[in-house]
Amino acid sequence: MNNSAADPTPTPLAVDDLEAFKHAFRRHAAGVAAITALGPDGKPVGFTATSLASLAAVPPMATFNMAQIASAWPAMTVGNHVAIHMLGPRTRHLAEKLSADNSVRFAGDHWVPGPYGVPILNGVTAWMLGQIIEVHPVHNNAVIVVQIETGALGPEDDALLYHERAYRSPGQSV
Amino acid sequence: MNNSAADPTPTPLAVDDLEAFKHAFRRHAAGVAAITALGPDGKPVGFTATSLASLAAVPPMATFNMAQIASAWPAMTVGNHVAIHMLGPRTRHLAEKLSADNSVRFAGDHWVPGPYGVPILNGVTAWMLGQIIEVHPVHNNAVIVVQIETGALGPEDDALLYHERAYRSPGQSV
Repeated sequence: MNNSAADPTPTPLAVDDLEAFKHAFRRHAAGVAAITALGPDGKPVGFTATSLASLAAVPPMATFNMAQIASAWPAMTVGNHVAIHMLGPRTRHLAEKLSADNSVRFAGDHWVPGPYGVPILNGVTAWMLGQIIEVHPVHNNAVIVVQIETGALGPEDDALLYHERAYRSPGQSV
Repeated sequence: MNNSAADPTPTPLAVDDLEAFKHAFRRHAAGVAAITALGPDGKPVGFTATSLASLAAVPPMATFNMAQIASAWPAMTVGNHVAIHMLGPRTRHLAEKLSADNSVRFAGDHWVPGPYGVPILNGVTAWMLGQIIEVHPVHNNAVIVVQIETGALGPEDDALLYHERAYRSPGQSV
């Protein structure tokens, strides 16, 4: 039965949980950051994150989310330090490097040891270093809360986005 | 003393906590979402968020951050439902409406009551509805964890970004 005449307003496709979630996040754009730290064995760990968010300005705090199967998870302990790097189109290679196989993420000269030995990635538009103040495991994932202590600006560049499975730069004002 | 000859690599401007935080987040782009719920008095509340992030796909969970002074804060209790809307350039007005004075955010015909009476904003590219499963207060702010239950797709549109104090659409691939 075609009831389009009786119901001229198309009903949006209602979907359940996982499909709703996938569809919605495909229509959301996210900034790209890179997180680094030292693991319990003193070796650098890190990953590319699209979940970085500001939590508060005073005191300055940020959050990011991660999976507990991530190679960086053992470094996510309260009191440990992490560096949060803002990436741009010119440092897209860092987003790819930090999302590659975790055995090669720190193979190369794309980083230097920073405060507390935490890896600082070269050429990023900005980085912040802070202490993990809360870790909230949720199922097999976790929310990490970081209080920012210091940081620096790098070379100017556009921001880096991830949207529709591609890295992009921000476009025009709308 | 000018030591640029002895130190040809300009040292990035190192800054402390709040300045580092402000500088870094200025160089980060964020997707724009709108969050709605019903308050304890049954009245709609909501706000525009740039902190929405995916936490997990199975089960589907998302997080957002907010200030405890927000008018929507009393609605952020475990078990209450919230709607998370993805915005686009064509629904930029909703981002402005939901960040205006909170007494007028639901004055108008830009929303309808959805599941559990939670306001669903008209014309959004996608919305998800879920139950608040965790609330983590941090100083005067909070991280909210939502498990997604249902949702729908709306009209196609670009994503909406907030970057350098302007609403933007995503640009070209880089």
